[in-house]
Amino acid sequence: MSQIKYKYPAKVFLNGEILDAGDAKISVFDRGFIFGDGVYEVMARIDGRFFYREAHLARLKWCLGQIHIKADISQLENAIPELLAASGLAEKDCLLYMQVSRGTAPRQHSYPQKIRPTLMMYAWPKTLAGINTTHASVLTIEDYRWSRCDIKSTSLLGNVMANQLAMENDCYETLFIRDGKITEASHCNVFFVKDRIVYTHPRGPLILDGITRQVVLELCKQHGMEVRLEGIPSKEIDKMDEAFLTGTSTQVMAIKEVDGYRFFERQAGPVTQKLQKAFLELKNAP
Amino acid sequence: MSQIKYKYPAKVFLNGEILDAGDAKISVFDRGFIFGDGVYEVMARIDGRFFYREAHLARLKWCLGQIHIKADISQLENAIPELLAASGLAEKDCLLYMQVSRGTAPRQHSYPQKIRPTLMMYAWPKTLAGINTTHASVLTIEDYRWSRCDIKSTSLLGNVMANQLAMENDCYETLFIRDGKITEASHCNVFFVKDRIVYTHPRGPLILDGITRQVVLELCKQHGMEVRLEGIPSKEIDKMDEAFLTGTSTQVMAIKEVDGYRFFERQAGPVTQKLQKAFLELKNAP
Repeated sequence: MSQIKYKYPAKVFLNGEILDAGDAKISVFDRGFIFGDGVYEVMARIDGRFFYREAHLARLKWCLGQIHIKADISQLENAIPELLAASGLAEKDCLLYMQVSRGTAPRQHSYPQKIRPTLMMYAWPKTLAGINTTHASVLTIEDYRWSRCDIKSTSLLGNVMANQLAMENDCYETLFIRDGKITEASHCNVFFVKDRIVYTHPRGPLILDGITRQVVLELCKQHGMEVRLEGIPSKEIDKMDEAFLTGTSTQVMAIKEVDGYRFFERQAGPVTQKLQKAFLELKNAP
Repeated sequence: MSQIKYKYPAKVFLNGEILDAGDAKISVFDRGFIFGDGVYEVMARIDGRFFYREAHLARLKWCLGQIHIKADISQLENAIPELLAASGLAEKDCLLYMQVSRGTAPRQHSYPQKIRPTLMMYAWPKTLAGINTTHASVLTIEDYRWSRCDIKSTSLLGNVMANQLAMENDCYETLFIRDGKITEASHCNVFFVKDRIVYTHPRGPLILDGITRQVVLELCKQHGMEVRLEGIPSKEIDKMDEAFLTGTSTQVMAIKEVDGYRFFERQAGPVTQKLQKAFLELKNAP
């Protein structure tokens, strides 16, 4: 897989200011840099509204609470229109990245008292129109990450290493196996389908409870599909009929093969297709 | 435990420049900030020499290799004298913190190509003369961190949370239990003694192979003490005679109690004392 060319955004919101990306700088003593001590969120703007905005913001608040960072998220929320306007995205579809670190303090492991969190966000143009037609190859590895994957933290080295492994193997993603079962992927959730029953790992500390994951589970319910919240044993992947990934920018992406085992060669399987169409309708809903 | 007042250092080395601490700034797109994508090292200068300097630098290089960051560490090494002079530490005992992140790039999980690592270091006055007479209380929790603790990475949120728990419980440290056995602490290694036999968790991916840990193991050998590289089951802590922590700034610190179970009330146990004295002699050796 050739390396995608990523670009810096035009503007960055940083602690109340909107700056050129090149001017957005933090102290080397920011605990985000020294300790990976922060959380983040990504949400998509489609046709003028942020998709499941409240769910994303609620998760950001929950994650901040889990690690006891007292941050006023409304400072981020209120600055979104100005950031989008400054970024030339007032009328455009885009993705928005938000990060909160505990703030800047002399290095000590435990939480310093009375410091101000660092609030950062930026947006870049991205259209998530239509169905994601990428047909992904993925591989699997043992889940060596921490067991608080429910916290969307910026201590992401484990995810970064797993994602790199995917790239080196011409794959879109790496699936993690914990205690013999598939949990999630480096930046996506994962679903399987067998005999028209939809399977995904239950929420809890071993996975991020993705917003798109939640939406897909709701769509299954609306469409009368049976769902089982079970992690699929890695040894039973070859008994599955279909598999797909979910994520904010990934949306609902069919998996073509896992570790070389192939599901559908040419297109997404029927249940995946049905969910992709239902997801598209939801995005297009007024 | 009252909160210790930490201070910023006088100067910071950052990518070839020596700056006032307040001027040492990095891009918000530094992967150290966005992903915790970096490694670090701390070493102590005692009587004009860095204690086990080569071992620390070798570990830094090894860790960089583990996560495929190509950084020229000699840039840090060569700048140490100038940094110490600028920091008013040319003649003083101090601690030196060094951090290398993968560098600055638009956000993508996998490793960007052809970016320059961020090199940062700073020193602050600290005398590690004598024996560390702190008699520590510690608590235990399940090890929820990743299983590549041998990489001294800056994705440290798990360690930070555990250290905070120690502070909230008036403890010096939190010991981790994985699969029923004590592995290490949030920023120290841990040893136990039973019937004059010294126990500590074997090296491998579940612990950081601390330099002070290695030194203590060598001292045990030199003093004819039997060592067993075994993780002590958390349920057998109350069968142990002594326990102690090791670390660059912690040195060899006796543990007074674990989860309320008390070893020696008034002072370190005999084996701990012997190792503390041997460690002191080593520090004072010409």
